[in-house]
Amino acid sequence: MTQRQLHLNLFVYPGGHHEAGWRYHGSDPDRVVDISYYQELARKAEAAKFDALFFADGPALADNIRYASRFRLEPLTTITALAAVTQRIGLIATASTTYSEPYNLARLFASVDHISNGRVGWNIVTTGAAQAAQNFGLDAHPDHGDRYGRAHEFLEVVTKLWDSWQDDALVIDPQTGIFADDDKIHEINHVGAHFRVRGPLNLSRSPQGRPVYVQAGSSEDGRHFAALHAEAIFTAHQNLRNAQDFYADIKARLRGIGRNPDHLKVLPGISPYIGSTTAEAEALHDEFNDLTQPAYSLGVLRRMTGLELSGHDLDGPFPRHLIAPDPDRAEASRFKLVLDIVDREKPTIRQLLHRIAGARGHWVTVGTPEKIADDIQTWFENGAADGFNVMPPWLHGGFDAFVDHVLPILRKRGLFRHDYQGQTLRDHFGLPRPDSLYATETKRSA
Amino acid sequence: MTQRQLHLNLFVYPGGHHEAGWRYHGSDPDRVVDISYYQELARKAEAAKFDALFFADGPALADNIRYASRFRLEPLTTITALAAVTQRIGLIATASTTYSEPYNLARLFASVDHISNGRVGWNIVTTGAAQAAQNFGLDAHPDHGDRYGRAHEFLEVVTKLWDSWQDDALVIDPQTGIFADDDKIHEINHVGAHFRVRGPLNLSRSPQGRPVYVQAGSSEDGRHFAALHAEAIFTAHQNLRNAQDFYADIKARLRGIGRNPDHLKVLPGISPYIGSTTAEAEALHDEFNDLTQPAYSLGVLRRMTGLELSGHDLDGPFPRHLIAPDPDRAEASRFKLVLDIVDREKPTIRQLLHRIAGARGHWVTVGTPEKIADDIQTWFENGAADGFNVMPPWLHGGFDAFVDHVLPILRKRGLFRHDYQGQTLRDHFGLPRPDSLYATETKRSA
Repeated sequence: MTQRQLHLNLFVYPGGHHEAGWRYHGSDPDRVVDISYYQELARKAEAAKFDALFFADGPALADNIRYASRFRLEPLTTITALAAVTQRIGLIATASTTYSEPYNLARLFASVDHISNGRVGWNIVTTGAAQAAQNFGLDAHPDHGDRYGRAHEFLEVVTKLWDSWQDDALVIDPQTGIFADDDKIHEINHVGAHFRVRGPLNLSRSPQGRPVYVQAGSSEDGRHFAALHAEAIFTAHQNLRNAQDFYADIKARLRGIGRNPDHLKVLPGISPYIGSTTAEAEALHDEFNDLTQPAYSLGVLRRMTGLELSGHDLDGPFPRHLIAPDPDRAEASRFKLVLDIVDREKPTIRQLLHRIAGARGHWVTVGTPEKIADDIQTWFENGAADGFNVMPPWLHGGFDAFVDHVLPILRKRGLFRHDYQGQTLRDHFGLPRPDSLYATETKRSA
Repeated sequence: MTQRQLHLNLFVYPGGHHEAGWRYHGSDPDRVVDISYYQELARKAEAAKFDALFFADGPALADNIRYASRFRLEPLTTITALAAVTQRIGLIATASTTYSEPYNLARLFASVDHISNGRVGWNIVTTGAAQAAQNFGLDAHPDHGDRYGRAHEFLEVVTKLWDSWQDDALVIDPQTGIFADDDKIHEINHVGAHFRVRGPLNLSRSPQGRPVYVQAGSSEDGRHFAALHAEAIFTAHQNLRNAQDFYADIKARLRGIGRNPDHLKVLPGISPYIGSTTAEAEALHDEFNDLTQPAYSLGVLRRMTGLELSGHDLDGPFPRHLIAPDPDRAEASRFKLVLDIVDREKPTIRQLLHRIAGARGHWVTVGTPEKIADDIQTWFENGAADGFNVMPPWLHGGFDAFVDHVLPILRKRGLFRHDYQGQTLRDHFGLPRPDSLYATETKRSA
């Protein structure tokens, strides 16, 4: 029996994940909208046999573009351009159920799944940034519960659309003149609280049947959604204990509803600072923190907590008492994460800003390649992770260091593949290819 | 002074433009969802120095997929995958103003314009197919006037979004820590009858500033829209006289509102059947017509005219008297085109079906390479066209024949480029790169 294998995604953030990554001397910020910059990175990640590349998204401009590389090419077009220059690596794009139409989004993902020969994943988000609403004619961002209500129905609609052509609907017989068997192409006739969609999709079923369903929310609504629908979950934890609690909870939810817990991969973020000695790694981490700009970091903290600390002494203690109970925030996973750091570590304001600067609250680990590999193995073998979303502090160098120094150790320990075993992202993640809902109906009635 | 040059687009229709093109022995219908089939075609068209590839679209499945290749990969993802394997050729994708959100569409096009280094055009349509409404929660397709009302405002919004970053907004100075000059990134604060959009776009201004605005409607609303906004117009005419009337009308409209008439290129469709002799070309054309299936063609005619003729003798005269005056149809360009053929040619039903089968009402020309080149030159030099959308009856062979046999004649006559002179689609079409609306404001107030 082969050893259980790690899954590794490269989470691509234009200027790197550290908020000052774009300022680091090894980075290449002039190329943030140059597709060849991402194509080179995709080829590297494929050569390293990573499961997938992962792209975040939100349909509004971040309000702190002055100090950081906080914008990007649109993810679906980006992954399409990457699909064209790679053969095996998976490609995961984030898209919002709150600010898209299901018919349009279903087409885009099905098309990229065809173009990539079955390598696409959809990171399903409801969009946290309230300013998005104003780009779509709404007075206010729908609240958390409403967004998830729409998300559940959105997923039902796009799933039906992806299934609306049975896999064998295309006949293409020039002799008889029959191009498609229209008995195997189904209207979905969906009528719900948020959507009425007739279908069928105007595209044949894609190589994976459906893109891989990825999810990234860790609130109660998010966990419930993930347990029902997700096949991979991207999550943020600062320590093993919290990650274990989350892992156990989400896997138990799957068992509870009769889903195979192996069919949802839990992938925490990890942002590694790698040095040939511990001192060298810590010096690297310090170098990044020295490049942070409080005017930027205080804004990030304000969005996470509601606290305006620009007048305060940055080297004084973090004013925990100023955080007011706020039911709107209580469910937000980033808010909980900040509180957790504050309560455990009692940082100064500046220390907290540095903790957040690393990877917006994700796990930052600093050390030698062996130390990073140990961290990964510990989480992987102790019920905290099925793999990781690797978040390099800067690009491409932060990724190169991981591939050159950490990956060989993981391979030597038998934890990570030497080559791809399959063609599709479902193959890489060990997920089944779903039958069409309508194929099942046909079989049942036959 | 250099001679005025033809513009040539390749209009890519998955199985070829003849409705039975997919059945022709030289075609390759099994590859209609295989991106490499289009990538090979794009490379050929680029080697031939064509201005652009053109992709049609509609957000609903055609209801006659049983007999013909009437579906496609989604166009924006398709052109992105083509951008990744070409360097110079333009890429025009159709997208609907009726069934998209301006913020989402603006992002997608801006992103592909970045990815392609400035080679993108948007074919702006309001969507003619009524069944699309039912994929988007509407009881009925908005009427022609309402669709154009939304289209005008849609264009205003996306134009503002594309202009919302001035060209020099990105600073990217690692020393000072300034990534972008946010004084040069503008909220658009659009409030109109159909849309409220705050902006700015979450992507820097693209290489062309805005994609090339292409338009394809020839109704009164369509012409008015084209005169105001379009930079290229794709149009269907069966004969020189009609094409001249249209050309004169549209250029006069531009002059009337103070636009330079050279800044809108009129590009009729042309579907050529090429043989080394006239008899060979006619035999080729007959071969295609013999492959048509009345069950399919009668459906096309029904959608164009409202007439159900499946019980009729196909070799009897076309029953002109059955066409009832219908104000909803009176403005539809395809309807007028059918009436025009009927009134001029007095065809049998089968003859009319063959005329429509060729290229859904576009100009079909049959003959030797010299004859096709003469046709093109005649239209080009007699006020009927600035170039053409070439619509091969089948792929790839129908395009190869044009490139191998007609293009050399056009080049020998000095009518078509031997190489690209510029990098962007605007360069190929001879169109100016627009300044940002907001840059002009800054200059004015300075």
